[in-house]
Amino acid sequence: MATSLRNIKSLAPLLDRILVQRIRADTKTASGIFLPESSVEKLSEARVLAVGPGGLDKDGKRVEVSVKPGDRVLIPPFGGSAVKVGEEEYTLFRDHELLAKINE
Amino acid sequence: MATSLRNIKSLAPLLDRILVQRIRADTKTASGIFLPESSVEKLSEARVLAVGPGGLDKDGKRVEVSVKPGDRVLIPPFGGSAVKVGEEEYTLFRDHELLAKINE
Amino acid sequence: MATSLRNIKSLAPLLDRILVQRIRADTKTASGIFLPESSVEKLSEARVLAVGPGGLDKDGKRVEVSVKPGDRVLIPPFGGSAVKVGEEEYTLFRDHELLAKINE
Amino acid sequence: MATSLRNIKSLAPLLDRILVQRIRADTKTASGIFLPESSVEKLSEARVLAVGPGGLDKDGKRVEVSVKPGDRVLIPPFGGSAVKVGEEEYTLFRDHELLAKINE
Amino acid sequence: MATSLRNIKSLAPLLDRILVQRIRADTKTASGIFLPESSVEKLSEARVLAVGPGGLDKDGKRVEVSVKPGDRVLIPPFGGSAVKVGEEEYTLFRDHELLAKINE
Amino acid sequence: MATSLRNIKSLAPLLDRILVQRIRADTKTASGIFLPESSVEKLSEARVLAVGPGGLDKDGKRVEVSVKPGDRVLIPPFGGSAVKVGEEEYTLFRDHELLAKINE
Amino acid sequence: MATSLRNIKSLAPLLDRILVQRIRADTKTASGIFLPESSVEKLSEARVLAVGPGGLDKDGKRVEVSVKPGDRVLIPPFGGSAVKVGEEEYTLFRDHELLAKINE
Repeated sequence: MATSLRNIKSLAPLLDRILVQRIRADTKTASGIFLPESSVEKLSEARVLAVGPGGLDKDGKRVEVSVKPGDRVLIPPFGGSAVKVGEEEYTLFRDHELLAKINE
Repeated sequence: MATSLRNIKSLAPLLDRILVQRIRADTKTASGIFLPESSVEKLSEARVLAVGPGGLDKDGKRVEVSVKPGDRVLIPPFGGSAVKVGEEEYTLFRDHELLAKINE
Repeated sequence: MATSLRNIKSLAPLLDRILVQRIRADTKTASGIFLPESSVEKLSEARVLAVGPGGLDKDGKRVEVSVKPGDRVLIPPFGGSAVKVGEEEYTLFRDHELLAKINE
Repeated sequence: MATSLRNIKSLAPLLDRILVQRIRADTKTASGIFLPESSVEKLSEARVLAVGPGGLDKDGKRVEVSVKPGDRVLIPPFGGSAVKVGEEEYTLFRDHELLAKINE
Repeated sequence: MATSLRNIKSLAPLLDRILVQRIRADTKTASGIFLPESSVEKLSEARVLAVGPGGLDKDGKRVEVSVKPGDRVLIPPFGGSAVKVGEEEYTLFRDHELLAKINE
Repeated sequence: MATSLRNIKSLAPLLDRILVQRIRADTKTASGIFLPESSVEKLSEARVLAVGPGGLDKDGKRVEVSVKPGDRVLIPPFGGSAVKVGEEEYTLFRDHELLAKINE
Repeated sequence: MATSLRNIKSLAPLLDRILVQRIRADTKTASGIFLPESSVEKLSEARVLAVGPGGLDKDGKRVEVSVKPGDRVLIPPFGGSAVKVGEEEYTLFRDHELLAKINE
């Protein structure tokens, strides 16, 4: 989805949505040779940029989300809403769609 | 959906519905050249015009909506109910369908 | 659905159902020329004629409906149950299917 | 569904089921001329013959049904379970499937 | 479903299941003439043989079933699980699938 | 599903799962003649080998399962998860999928 | 799903997710002969490597998962999210998708 945003930091996810940016695979081999982009497999890792205030449970109470800005996470292969700011692509997931935190 | 409305301000969304108007992309380049409308990508941004009183939770209590008139929001690429007032087009979304607030 | 009703006022919607009648578009232009019916776009506006007592929440309590007889409302393009009384057509919607109230 | 019942009055609907019999359209015009059955539109009206004790809410409490024997109701064009007693046809609806009461 | 059961009485339905046996239509006319089985319409009536202890509501409490052994009931035209004991066929329904009790 | 298990007794079903083994139909007639396996109808009966601790209700409390090891049960014609240990086949059902207990 | 992870131990499953690694079937017969990989049936067994903190029940309380790291479990033939770390493949399941614990 195209936007006129100048800065992704202006985006404040609503409810239980999590804004992430996919981490790019190295396009350079260990020995320093550059690989063509098409031969690089897409990674399922992303960096959390912003998190929503949490969804509402059946009593109208906020349910805190599981991750925080800066977290590195494992994302599902499909789903999420793509957001384009300039040439960069970002994705919005629901909190429960994220698979795991990466502590590395 | 065609209407006989004279003014979009007469529309009061029901329950958790949010009335928005999509923000148009600039049809003029930075250097002042006008672009043909067809070459301009549709933006996923909208301005909130009016909000419903909120849906009802399982105990019949109102659940406040997440946005307010004047907010700029990121909208999903599909869904919502189109409303036409004169030549202008508007859309009604459910509150939880809106993706993010834009603070810019 | 055909009925033998003599008067639409005899119809008392059950639970959260709302009886409405679609508002007809003017078939006369501002300058007084009559348009053929087929060239007139169907409007998404309706007048509320009668409302049900409200559905029941999970504790068996009535949940009041959002509109009242006389209200002008924006209706969805599809759905509802058609009712025919004589030559007139009416529609029954569930309360949550109505999109907005029109205050004009 | 065929039955060996001698009398429809023996049928006691279970839970929130409502036993109705569709009202036949007049096959005689106002001026007394008889119409062939095939030219008579099927009506969406029915007479309530018997009602179940009501379904159970999540706490096991009975939820009273919305109509009572003798009521005239507007029924949906599809759905319900047909019951045949002798040559007569009846239908069983769930309470929430009935559209409106007819007070005429 | 074939079984090695010697006696249908050994079958104790679980949760909200109801074991019934369909009532056969008379294959003899009122005047005593026997009809070929194929010309006899299948009846939607059944005799309740055994009932389960009831399903569990959301608090783990038993929800009593609506019928008891010996009851004659109206069954839906489809659904249920067939059980074969010797040459006899039986059916297991969930309690809420039964349509009506027959008091005749 | 193939496994490397040496003994089916090592399998402890999780939540509301029930481990059963289908009972084989006699391949010998009453008069002692052996029938080819293909002419023997598959039975819908099974022996319960192990039961899970029970699923969790909405308050996180265990909901006891309806059967216990040793019980003979009527199983549905489809569904369940097959488990193979050596040459033997077993099936895991959810508790509510079992149809009836067999007391014979 | 490809990842840039150096160590699977960096992966901390979210909510009720369970990280497992499928157990390989022996590719050597009892008598020590090696079998070609293709002739070895895939096993439905896996070792639990890490577990999430548990999902949230309707009151926002954690629901503990059923297994712990080190447990050997029976996994369903389909489903789960594959994760690749170097040449190794892992799978993330929801807790309720695991079929049984293996105590052997």
